[in-house]
Amino acid sequence: MPEDILDDISHRRFNPLRGSWVLVSPHRTKRPWQGQQEEPSKNVLPEYDPSCYLCPGNKRAQGDHNPKYDSTFVFVNDYSAVKENQAEYNQPKEDGSLASRLLRAEGTTGKCYVITFSPAHNLTLADMPPQDILPVIQTWTKIYTSHLDPHSPLYKAAQSNSLPNGDSTEPSRQQFRYMQIFENKGAAMGCSNPHPHGQIWTTTSLPEEPSIELQHLQQYRREQSGSHMLVDYAKLESEKGERTVYENNSFWAGCPWWATWPFEIMVIAKTHKRALVDFNETEKEDLAETISEITRRYDNLFETSFPYSMGLHQAPLTGTDEEIESSHFHIHFYPPLLRSATVRKFLVGYEMMAEPQRDITPEQAAKRLRGCGGELYRRKLA
Amino acid sequence: MPEDILDDISHRRFNPLRGSWVLVSPHRTKRPWQGQQEEPSKNVLPEYDPSCYLCPGNKRAQGDHNPKYDSTFVFVNDYSAVKENQAEYNQPKEDGSLASRLLRAEGTTGKCYVITFSPAHNLTLADMPPQDILPVIQTWTKIYTSHLDPHSPLYKAAQSNSLPNGDSTEPSRQQFRYMQIFENKGAAMGCSNPHPHGQIWTTTSLPEEPSIELQHLQQYRREQSGSHMLVDYAKLESEKGERTVYENNSFWAGCPWWATWPFEIMVIAKTHKRALVDFNETEKEDLAETISEITRRYDNLFETSFPYSMGLHQAPLTGTDEEIESSHFHIHFYPPLLRSATVRKFLVGYEMMAEPQRDITPEQAAKRLRGCGGELYRRKLA
Ligand SMILES: O=P(O)(O)O[C@H]1O[C@H](CO)[C@@H](O)[C@H](O)[C@H]1O
Ligand SMILES: O=P(O)(O)O[C@H]1O[C@H](CO)[C@@H](O)[C@H](O)[C@H]1O
Repeated sequence: MPEDILDDISHRRFNPLRGSWVLVSPHRTKRPWQGQQEEPSKNVLPEYDPSCYLCPGNKRAQGDHNPKYDSTFVFVNDYSAVKENQAEYNQPKEDGSLASRLLRAEGTTGKCYVITFSPAHNLTLADMPPQDILPVIQTWTKIYTSHLDPHSPLYKAAQSNSLPNGDSTEPSRQQFRYMQIFENKGAAMGCSNPHPHGQIWTTTSLPEEPSIELQHLQQYRREQSGSHMLVDYAKLESEKGERTVYENNSFWAGCPWWATWPFEIMVIAKTHKRALVDFNETEKEDLAETISEITRRYDNLFETSFPYSMGLHQAPLTGTDEEIESSHFHIHFYPPLLRSATVRKFLVGYEMMAEPQRDITPEQAAKRLRGCGGELYRRKLA
Repeated sequence: MPEDILDDISHRRFNPLRGSWVLVSPHRTKRPWQGQQEEPSKNVLPEYDPSCYLCPGNKRAQGDHNPKYDSTFVFVNDYSAVKENQAEYNQPKEDGSLASRLLRAEGTTGKCYVITFSPAHNLTLADMPPQDILPVIQTWTKIYTSHLDPHSPLYKAAQSNSLPNGDSTEPSRQQFRYMQIFENKGAAMGCSNPHPHGQIWTTTSLPEEPSIELQHLQQYRREQSGSHMLVDYAKLESEKGERTVYENNSFWAGCPWWATWPFEIMVIAKTHKRALVDFNETEKEDLAETISEITRRYDNLFETSFPYSMGLHQAPLTGTDEEIESSHFHIHFYPPLLRSATVRKFLVGYEMMAEPQRDITPEQAAKRLRGCGGELYRRKLA
């Protein structure tokens, strides 16, 4: 193993998906911590909270009532960051002036949804068995399907899906470009309600991150005579094993070579899948199992409800054939904790001004997470 | 003003310095906040703390004693992220294998310094008058100078500077590529010691952010027949005024058109300056005044010791003539607070997975900060 030395020396690793570098300083874990401590979550929540705007039957901020749903529930965000209708912005003409060169803007419309993962207020994905995570994946798939461009090659792949009653997700009249499905979990990640839920923001623009990834995925495919970067990568990692946290027939999950966050995990489909609609039922079950295995290991690591932001990257809702065929389904988990339930990694001064920096290596992180399988610590204690 | 509409609608703004976009959702400030509250700093610190490893005369982690310094003091970080000497990493040869394509790394060496801004434990830049900030700028200039490539066109510009006695900043035998000067202030920004101090990380590699900026600065200069993007931009903003927070003869300071953080500020030299060594004494005084005006306004905004990360961007220590001539001195201030001393902006799920998103517009932020001049609130209360 020529790479053992990377446990000891400062080095940079290259992220081929973003075309960017991260600085790794393994010896730095030795420094003492005297800074901010996070509040670990108490987790003494009731199964139903009458004041929660996400619990079944309750009233929401703008006056709507949630139905008495018994699995997932989707509604339009009461405080959407983008909206379907707004006044039009006429970008000033490029007239050679400084202003037209340096003060550029474009209007953006879109639709933001909230999706609850369970009617129970006191659960998280880590508490839910794979069969209860499956409906979340089904709902993601349905909402993605209902926003697809009918001219997209993905449209045919999508079985006709209709949403459960009560979900206000009628396809909008506009064709949006991208759908970002994500979850912020825990107060440390800006989440203001512990009821298990995620968000879905859909926009007329292709956002920065998916756009950067798509450029690199397309370039790799062109240069490597049609092979897919992330399929190649999952294969390589599955063979090596040292960064693997969990894998099954359909997915590899592990700490990527270029991870920025201490316990960052990527979930990658092992064969080429452009988007959720490309999965058959068995693959969806494998995905539910993978999400369950990862979130449980996260909680077991520091015996706390582990905060993170996670998000799905997949094909844009509309795009060129090359864009859609080069897309490859994967999930990023970015958790902030570093040393314990109360000590996080700060990506601050150097990281903001110069370059992301991490302390423990991805191999060390993966090893620790691999060892955290088995029953959820909370259940063992109970 | 064709731009009034941007106060009401969701839009994206383009950052020409990074070539990236930010999503702006002005209406979103209306949503209530039920999430995490920051601990505002208590600010009942003593002027000297015997347990502080930065106070004059005290013992540090690895046993060294600080001198009884009376202005600034520089020493090598006891927990440096990069070091001058380490085992060499021989990158595996590019042999067409998946591993050589997807698992790329390079060794990085460098030197990390800590710089105290004052002997007083209980001060911040906001408490210090410009004449006490000036020595900080002098010390930054000296340490930058002492690491410059003797073949750089900047070397001649640098007056011969020697460092105050007791500072362990002898130039190293290696020629480093970049010096990142920065400050993390406040517990919310991962700062573990309130004693006023900053950091200086110097590396053999050009880090991501300065590298991205340099590419765009060079491209602009080529396309605009030799003019400098940030000189043009400061001129334009100074004329417009609506994003200006403070300016004097030498510097424009304001919330940039493309700001990501709610109260983000950029300080830009009004005429072309490649690096600290290009400033004469009057310009250094103007810079001290600018830093004082900004940090005081920050504290006055929410009547709290305002957390932020700030960093200087300037020419690399060594590089091509084109790189050095295209560089332009500026400072970024990235503060996390949004609504009050206890409610911050979280750049989490959507921001990490898709695109940075902000709520209040830079024009609204600049207006509020412009109005926060005058005496420091703490002194008025006292
Ligand atoms: O060096 P410090 O102050 O101990 O550490 C702080 O700043 C560093 C540089 O931005 C970060 O890498 C650390 O995560 C942060 O806690
Ligand atoms: O939408 P929420 O949960 O109220 O808000 C949270 O997630 C959003 C999307 O990542 C962020 O823009 C907010 O800063 C964060 O507090």
